[in-house]
Amino acid sequence: MSEKGALAGAGIWKRAKDHNTVGKMKKVLEAARKAGPDKCLIIHSPIGFREGYPELAKTHPGLLKGAEEAGGFKKGEWGAEITDELKPLSDETVLDKRRLCGFTDTELDGLLKNLGVENLMIGGFVTNWCVEATGRSAYDRGYHPVFLKDCMDAFTDEEQKFAEEKIFPVIGEVLTSDEAMAKFL
Amino acid sequence: MSEKGALAGAGIWKRAKDHNTVGKMKKVLEAARKAGPDKCLIIHSPIGFREGYPELAKTHPGLLKGAEEAGGFKKGEWGAEITDELKPLSDETVLDKRRLCGFTDTELDGLLKNLGVENLMIGGFVTNWCVEATGRSAYDRGYHPVFLKDCMDAFTDEEQKFAEEKIFPVIGEVLTSDEAMAKFL
Amino acid sequence: MSEKGALAGAGIWKRAKDHNTVGKMKKVLEAARKAGPDKCLIIHSPIGFREGYPELAKTHPGLLKGAEEAGGFKKGEWGAEITDELKPLSDETVLDKRRLCGFTDTELDGLLKNLGVENLMIGGFVTNWCVEATGRSAYDRGYHPVFLKDCMDAFTDEEQKFAEEKIFPVIGEVLTSDEAMAKFL
Amino acid sequence: MSEKGALAGAGIWKRAKDHNTVGKMKKVLEAARKAGPDKCLIIHSPIGFREGYPELAKTHPGLLKGAEEAGGFKKGEWGAEITDELKPLSDETVLDKRRLCGFTDTELDGLLKNLGVENLMIGGFVTNWCVEATGRSAYDRGYHPVFLKDCMDAFTDEEQKFAEEKIFPVIGEVLTSDEAMAKFL
Repeated sequence: MSEKGALAGAGIWKRAKDHNTVGKMKKVLEAARKAGPDKCLIIHSPIGFREGYPELAKTHPGLLKGAEEAGGFKKGEWGAEITDELKPLSDETVLDKRRLCGFTDTELDGLLKNLGVENLMIGGFVTNWCVEATGRSAYDRGYHPVFLKDCMDAFTDEEQKFAEEKIFPVIGEVLTSDEAMAKFL
Repeated sequence: MSEKGALAGAGIWKRAKDHNTVGKMKKVLEAARKAGPDKCLIIHSPIGFREGYPELAKTHPGLLKGAEEAGGFKKGEWGAEITDELKPLSDETVLDKRRLCGFTDTELDGLLKNLGVENLMIGGFVTNWCVEATGRSAYDRGYHPVFLKDCMDAFTDEEQKFAEEKIFPVIGEVLTSDEAMAKFL
Repeated sequence: MSEKGALAGAGIWKRAKDHNTVGKMKKVLEAARKAGPDKCLIIHSPIGFREGYPELAKTHPGLLKGAEEAGGFKKGEWGAEITDELKPLSDETVLDKRRLCGFTDTELDGLLKNLGVENLMIGGFVTNWCVEATGRSAYDRGYHPVFLKDCMDAFTDEEQKFAEEKIFPVIGEVLTSDEAMAKFL
Repeated sequence: MSEKGALAGAGIWKRAKDHNTVGKMKKVLEAARKAGPDKCLIIHSPIGFREGYPELAKTHPGLLKGAEEAGGFKKGEWGAEITDELKPLSDETVLDKRRLCGFTDTELDGLLKNLGVENLMIGGFVTNWCVEATGRSAYDRGYHPVFLKDCMDAFTDEEQKFAEEKIFPVIGEVLTSDEAMAKFL
């Protein structure tokens, strides 16, 4: 995420700046750090492909292949780095992902199940893609997704509104970061 | 699916009748049967819960719990039966599901991977829920989803349009049943 | 399982008769039925392939391909039927499997996780294959496997002994059916 | 793996030295590097737990809990480091695991499926545990496991022999490193 990042062209960066989305994410992150890991486990789930995009070798056209063609989200390069304000601490869990859904081919489900986690507060970019895919899958796997509506952005207002009003309430809870911190942290 | 089914109250049944959705599904099903299993494997994936809904024991509120509260989708009762016009033949594959996504906790991925399947034509009810969840997951798992836009229905025109225009084209192909039959069968 | 079944040639049927293995399984099954589903969920997990063995289309040589070549374990034929003495009641859970491990491509993990199950009493044929594969995977997924050592058989005494003494105690508990019934039912 | 490592007490280190197991692994690793990633993808799959062993929070007693109690296999400490002779190059794939089977809760299956990999040469410690668990699961998922019998060690000769003679040939191929290099690299 930056002015020159793979998502910048799609307008997400400008929208996130206008909405102070990263600032709100940071507030939740700090509250979670203060609450401690027994109360709230922090998981960073950045997308990042290996050199040569082997994870997309047989993937069909679509959003992920678009990232490959744009040369974006390469692990170890700044395009896949987490922005400084949200940088993981050394003892926080980072689960690299290569798909839209954070559960696909990652340790996420095993880790959460083993810890007995029930509620999953979710924020990130882009609302209708990685965020929604992860939230839908979380619900199917028995978790309660809590969508932090001011800690995410879509490509357009229409798409953000659709997810917030039509999809998220049917499978989980939709809260502002302030509401979520008051309730869960 | 019927006038008195669990989804009837939500208006899907009326919409499906107005759009002749089941009639179009039937046409694709018959073309697939004619093409034969080497060209096109037919998989029926109805939702159906066991007596007492044990699969939802720890599931959080939401669409699935709503089905339980309404007493709908009980396996072996008519509410979970596939409508007569689309009834599976005895040698066709039926994969019962208990979640929104057809891949969650089913044999679907193992079966498709083992057969080397690439394209997945998808129809069914409800567009933004089971259909979209399955299509998103199909894309993440390396398949090419082909959304049969006249073989599915949403609760409202707005929701159907959103899936067709904003979501499906980004992860797969959106075709009418006639276009899909011409291309794949 | 029968005198003429796919496993008969391998000597399992004779061993099972000598050991009264099915009789002991039946005793546990009846105790579990009496205990009721809130205390003990009964899951039958027979292996059974579809017509033409599509589930093995791309499978490499080995035990499963051997079953295909022998024409064994075809769903709907007697070779894949559960023996009369252990026949599932109509309200009991049957999860067909097509692999050695009962978790691979089945609903098993989702169902157990959703119900909060912790202990998994395991019996069946063949000790070092389906039984052990399922037990190993159960342990990896966070369950406590309880191996009912007189409710299973291997091809030879040496193999049964190896599993009982070297493998099972390292990942779970090894009990006779009487001991397990006293402890868990 | 070292004289003072978590597995040393169990005698594996001494056995590996006696058998020059690491030397043979190194030879295969170098041949695979020379063959290049298009012919042979190298995957290092070390076990390594996070601080506090959160991945084992609800795990039942057994081999993994034993590792926790011994304070072994902590990621970032030398006990979970790969020995110098086999150290991954910066562009090689490292998939941390927290279970006995290398497929459980990792990206392994997704990565291999996406690349269309068929044959899986497997070596490592301990033969009957991580190696066998991974090989069994590989077979169930449709891969062809090739067990490099001189690139692994068990706790005892009896256990190594049992895996080599009774288990591995039934689900895959058992080769010396020289035979495997001649056939696959």
